Amino acid sequence: MTLTVEKTDVKKQAILAKKASKTLSMLTTEQKNKALHILADHLETNYGSILEQNEKDLDRGREKGFEAAFMDRLSLSKERVEDFANGLRQVADLEDPTGKVVSDWALENQLQVQKVTVPLGVIGMIYEARPNVTVDATGLALKSGNAIILKGGSNAITSNKAIVDVMHEALEKTDIPKDAVQFINTTDREATSELFTMKEHIDVLIPRGGGALINAVVNNATVPVLETGVGNCHIYIDKEAELEKALNIIINAKTDRPAVCNAAETVILHEKWFDEHKDAFVEKLKEHHVSIHGDEKVVEVIKDAKLAGEEDWANEYLSLDIAVKVVSSLNEAVDHIEQYGTKHSEAIVTENNETAKKFMMLVDAAALYHNASTRFTDGGALGFGAEIGISTQKLHARGPMGLPALTTVKYMMHGTGQIR
Amino acid sequence: MTLTVEKTDVKKQAILAKKASKTLSMLTTEQKNKALHILADHLETNYGSILEQNEKDLDRGREKGFEAAFMDRLSLSKERVEDFANGLRQVADLEDPTGKVVSDWALENQLQVQKVTVPLGVIGMIYEARPNVTVDATGLALKSGNAIILKGGSNAITSNKAIVDVMHEALEKTDIPKDAVQFINTTDREATSELFTMKEHIDVLIPRGGGALINAVVNNATVPVLETGVGNCHIYIDKEAELEKALNIIINAKTDRPAVCNAAETVILHEKWFDEHKDAFVEKLKEHHVSIHGDEKVVEVIKDAKLAGEEDWANEYLSLDIAVKVVSSLNEAVDHIEQYGTKHSEAIVTENNETAKKFMMLVDAAALYHNASTRFTDGGALGFGAEIGISTQKLHARGPMGLPALTTVKYMMHGTGQIR
Repeated sequence: MTLTVEKTDVKKQAILAKKASKTLSMLTTEQKNKALHILADHLETNYGSILEQNEKDLDRGREKGFEAAFMDRLSLSKERVEDFANGLRQVADLEDPTGKVVSDWALENQLQVQKVTVPLGVIGMIYEARPNVTVDATGLALKSGNAIILKGGSNAITSNKAIVDVMHEALEKTDIPKDAVQFINTTDREATSELFTMKEHIDVLIPRGGGALINAVVNNATVPVLETGVGNCHIYIDKEAELEKALNIIINAKTDRPAVCNAAETVILHEKWFDEHKDAFVEKLKEHHVSIHGDEKVVEVIKDAKLAGEEDWANEYLSLDIAVKVVSSLNEAVDHIEQYGTKHSEAIVTENNETAKKFMMLVDAAALYHNASTRFTDGGALGFGAEIGISTQKLHARGPMGLPALTTVKYMMHGTGQIR
Repeated sequence: MTLTVEKTDVKKQAILAKKASKTLSMLTTEQKNKALHILADHLETNYGSILEQNEKDLDRGREKGFEAAFMDRLSLSKERVEDFANGLRQVADLEDPTGKVVSDWALENQLQVQKVTVPLGVIGMIYEARPNVTVDATGLALKSGNAIILKGGSNAITSNKAIVDVMHEALEKTDIPKDAVQFINTTDREATSELFTMKEHIDVLIPRGGGALINAVVNNATVPVLETGVGNCHIYIDKEAELEKALNIIINAKTDRPAVCNAAETVILHEKWFDEHKDAFVEKLKEHHVSIHGDEKVVEVIKDAKLAGEEDWANEYLSLDIAVKVVSSLNEAVDHIEQYGTKHSEAIVTENNETAKKFMMLVDAAALYHNASTRFTDGGALGFGAEIGISTQKLHARGPMGLPALTTVKYMMHGTGQIR
């Protein structure tokens, strides 16, 4: 491919985005919502040109022999473009996260203090192949008053460019400056790393994709990062867990959508429960075609189970495989999760509320579950309306991030000449 | 000096801190408050041993010929130790920032969702010479349920060690594990940089000190950082500013405490105001012994003013010097602040509320002032009770950071077997 931008162009684009973010930050909620509806309508009207360009990505994908699941995620249709448009309309319906007075008070000298939410400024979105992120992230950024710089995966670059072209046309008819949406039209990795260090022009980087992408951003960026998504999630089955409940939760968390970050990867069984229920456990997993990778105690008694090693404990399978560990205490389970967990979603199944409480206090993760599947860690499932990603970091935002994660605050002080 | 710790000791200390943080996170508010009072009492009782060790730092400081202001900050007395103790008692009186239910709701399937504040875990505090930070930061960390690793400046290392020794003795009499307070007893810079990358054991680094220290941490740490304090603050005097109000605010922001981060460093004058009031302006600054470094328009008409260069616009003076720039519009003022400001505190003086609003929306800083001195950007002045630093970043916490900045959240989900 010969698509490139000059190295300095990325900087120019970032400067334009910053400038546009100032205008955008002054718009009313109504102006932003109207713009989102215009974007949605224009995407629907122009689905043809998007599909035409999408064919080029699909052709390249076929040439490269990508697997069916990947091609499916890459492939657009009239219906998918309509889904994008409806997503934008839903974002328009959400509450504006900016301009909210978090708290206000007056000092003794009558200085009025207001703590108010404001946009972050410019968001750098670095993501892999799915073209839907191009629309979703743009919608969330604009609604929260932020400019956005989009750097998508190279395999979807032609589709992403077509989508952005249509959005740019639509922006001409709105109060939002076109420059508020910047697309890095290159497959050059250097352009991405240039984004990592533009602290003056970019306020936050959000990586969305696999662990390698996320780690590259986290380890190399000096721009602040909102870290999203690797989920090596565990389910701990306590000695006081009900059989049916435990099995249903394990099967749901493992098999409902194995490739997503809130799927379970390891189940930790209390030895008493294991001794009593191992046959039912194995039968249920077999029934759902789940392969077991077990520790020594497990492989001793379960035929067909493979011996699990460091790799199994440390990584996401994202498939119908599960690691199984037997422990003799809650603390042993907690220590294992401390060592291998990614602070995403962790569950305990038990009828003992005290045990559950201890687990949920001691385990360090964004979401802790007592007697429920880990699959609910999701902006949609929790009713956030939209999600920019699931934060596995502790600062700023933790867990599913909706629009408020794209804001910061200003202290606004109104005086009549107060001095100290 | 021969004080050193083995390189691996720092890691051991971090692991001990992490372990202690788990115990600490389970304590009640009463247990933590009781401990803080025991710490306070023990510091007061043992002031003698602290002063004895402080003498050694002072001796070294005299040998090195440090200036008087520095020696004053380093120097302890019975009264200062009593102040430390009273600071701890005040922290005990503050509301516990953990265990607060930020929001709770139920999904349609009756899964109960609670978003609850919890401690961050382990805080790495990297600071320069003032020994009071050793006590203040420890008090704030423990109250918020966090373990702390203290790495103070080498010039106060003997005093800091003595303070920590006394606090360790006191912790033996409390429910807080002694390991929750770790002191890096070395002047070796490598020990500091080791802290930068211990992501598994340290949850956040907080640098407090000069720009060089803060930049070293921000640019080299992979552990998340709460960036504090460089304040290159501006006061913009609009054409519609009242003379008296403007001069009082300038003088207060510049001269009340020139060395602190919320002091003003540059004043930007609208040309109309400058033309009309330059004599009164110059007279007032002279009266308060403030030296003017001005742009070309300023040096043309004010004798004694030095010509300001890039250095003057870009840096904090932290002295009775001020940079003065004349502009022809609000936008020119905003652009100057965008270029040189450090996103700390920025003020406008004007009788025009629309102009003030525009300034406060467009300028990107933690605190924006309309007709008041920048000196109020301070946890104490704003009534936060205590302050761990002033954040100049946009993520997590912005402006003066009290106890809530030392917490994160967990989503706690209680179910009865819910699956998706």
